[in-house]
Amino acid sequence: MLRVGGEPMRHGTMRERNLAVLLGEISAHGPVTRARLAAHTGFTKTTVSNLLAVLAEAGLVRDGDLVHEGERGRPGVGVTVNGEGPAGLGLEINVDYLAACVLDLGRRIRYRHLVTADNRARSPEDTAAGLSRLAHQAVDAAAEQGLSVTGAVVAIPGVLAGERVVHAPNLGWHDVPAAALLRDVLPPLLLPVGHDNEANLAALGELWFGAGRPLGDFLHVSGEIGIGAGLIVGGQVFRGAHGFAGELGHMAVAPDGPECTCGGRGCLERVAGQEAILRAAGLTGVTPGSSAGPRESISALVRLLRSGDAQAREAVAVAGRDLGTALAATVKVLDPDTVVLGGIFSPLARWIRTPVEAALENGALYGAVPPVVVSPLAGEAAVLGAAGLVIERIHADPARLLR
Amino acid sequence: MLRVGGEPMRHGTMRERNLAVLLGEISAHGPVTRARLAAHTGFTKTTVSNLLAVLAEAGLVRDGDLVHEGERGRPGVGVTVNGEGPAGLGLEINVDYLAACVLDLGRRIRYRHLVTADNRARSPEDTAAGLSRLAHQAVDAAAEQGLSVTGAVVAIPGVLAGERVVHAPNLGWHDVPAAALLRDVLPPLLLPVGHDNEANLAALGELWFGAGRPLGDFLHVSGEIGIGAGLIVGGQVFRGAHGFAGELGHMAVAPDGPECTCGGRGCLERVAGQEAILRAAGLTGVTPGSSAGPRESISALVRLLRSGDAQAREAVAVAGRDLGTALAATVKVLDPDTVVLGGIFSPLARWIRTPVEAALENGALYGAVPPVVVSPLAGEAAVLGAAGLVIERIHADPARLLR
Repeated sequence: MLRVGGEPMRHGTMRERNLAVLLGEISAHGPVTRARLAAHTGFTKTTVSNLLAVLAEAGLVRDGDLVHEGERGRPGVGVTVNGEGPAGLGLEINVDYLAACVLDLGRRIRYRHLVTADNRARSPEDTAAGLSRLAHQAVDAAAEQGLSVTGAVVAIPGVLAGERVVHAPNLGWHDVPAAALLRDVLPPLLLPVGHDNEANLAALGELWFGAGRPLGDFLHVSGEIGIGAGLIVGGQVFRGAHGFAGELGHMAVAPDGPECTCGGRGCLERVAGQEAILRAAGLTGVTPGSSAGPRESISALVRLLRSGDAQAREAVAVAGRDLGTALAATVKVLDPDTVVLGGIFSPLARWIRTPVEAALENGALYGAVPPVVVSPLAGEAAVLGAAGLVIERIHADPARLLR
Repeated sequence: MLRVGGEPMRHGTMRERNLAVLLGEISAHGPVTRARLAAHTGFTKTTVSNLLAVLAEAGLVRDGDLVHEGERGRPGVGVTVNGEGPAGLGLEINVDYLAACVLDLGRRIRYRHLVTADNRARSPEDTAAGLSRLAHQAVDAAAEQGLSVTGAVVAIPGVLAGERVVHAPNLGWHDVPAAALLRDVLPPLLLPVGHDNEANLAALGELWFGAGRPLGDFLHVSGEIGIGAGLIVGGQVFRGAHGFAGELGHMAVAPDGPECTCGGRGCLERVAGQEAILRAAGLTGVTPGSSAGPRESISALVRLLRSGDAQAREAVAVAGRDLGTALAATVKVLDPDTVVLGGIFSPLARWIRTPVEAALENGALYGAVPPVVVSPLAGEAAVLGAAGLVIERIHADPARLLR
């Protein structure tokens, strides 16, 4: 069962479930007439009309153009999901940027914004204040398009437990009351604000908006300053017993490697994360506190790679080998259909995919190597997954917007 | 959804589902009166009576003593699962032994038998013939107790795909048509014979008959000549996309270690499996083709450990360290509530648990170390899981026994 921090899915009444069934049907098949909705759901026409009135009142559906659904009869009014009503806000706190996006109920992207920010250099409170500005801008921009943001989910690159961020070592956060912090500064919204692990939300973003749907059960690797992984099984995130599953970045790949912020040594993200790659490539200007943003830094690296720079190519090859080694161990216990390279590994794919595949193959059992594909979303998967989760929650329980 | 090799769960008719609901209720709460069954299931008393007649006809339930279920009314006839009717046969092919057990419908163990057999030294056909003798003995012994074995599941230490064993390197099996082989030699049974991976069945055995139920989501480690792992999530086995999940034994823990039958190098089972431990402990008599069985060999090791033998203790400590290192990586991606040491690690627990825990703690993220518990089933988990799966299948679809 999909959960958002601190807010388990409710068991609804019959009417609440029926509203969700009807909205799901309209979302999947709209525009669709009342007659067909009755036929598909098994509800009487009166029930369909009553439920539609409730959904329309909440701004979730609207009547559109006439549609003709078969060879017989006259065309009927087509009901669709209201793309100009409630909307979902996705937010992301990452180590070197903040991001926001807004999705309408039809899951179209209506707003996106990313700002570089060295969140290691400031307190959780200051970071939350920065996110607050981004969130208010997003809500205002959505309102200008006639959209009403009803809920938000925040992606955080760390281990979460209930309302708190237990560890986000790359942010320097330890036992931070994230939910309360965010609640205090975000714009007032109808639904409570959720928060979730960045790697899990990136996997959901990939599923809903990226390469995901045809991939079966896949492991999505989020390459940022840290490295996380999210496993999608049967269309849901596999979270593990404490939500710690997929901590790929802290697999030890270099026993004598550098110390990690997690307390370990030779962790994957210390040798194949964004900063490790940039440093190995000679892009030493990119350090904590520098003004170069993540996109600029990776763009600089890509320029070097394109120019055939040997040091840059070697840096990416080594990172790819280490990433592939960690993935080989992961694949032995998780057995995904596909591995998706996301985050910074997406723009680096042309150079990093081959060494990843070679190491994966080298460490694979009986040649059972899952295909490695490249995320079309790159660093946007998590914030899209966060906004998508708001939309999922509305679809799962539209009655929430009535209360 | 739980699957058995080559035989997905069927979607039943309403009557078939109702039979399963009623049998489940009787199994969980029996002895129970017809009146209470109607109250619990929401079926009418007539429906309950009709369904009970069908279940009784198939030998699945029987009337027992009078039971008094509340303060009011007279006692009624208590219906129970029939412990003297259909039964499930569990079979196991392992590298150095064959095993069988029979469970009645109430999941009580009614028969168990283990014979030492060096299955590496003989062909799949000869191994199947050996298993056939064990299976016929088990069916006969069950019949003497009034039980009728209706189905069997065979545990095999290898990677299975559909009807075939793709790889069972410790047995020397590659692309063996196991289902057909077994069908030909096993006694004729009402339900088709299933087969499944030994580590997965051992995890189910642990769940149903061992330490499992209170452990939440757990990772069960099967230590034999090979080392496998099975993850239980929400009461089901997590199998991965191709059923390869949990291949713990082939995690590389010693980059310069010995070659493995899988084609890799330094795999965990080459340094912490039964033969590696025995050899390191100086018990060199135990080699392929020797007449010493697995129980005798491990008993000899336990005697050495009890006597304080330094070489034996060092051998077990090193194996424990390597096992803990592999488990630390596994825990980072799977995040189980608990780790269960089974198979040979169970009798060795007094000496191996501490080094396992130390290595696990050393490699753990943020001290998130799952507790390590010891299986009470030792090497019997897989064969019990296999028999238990037959009983589960009968409970899930009792109508199968009517056809």
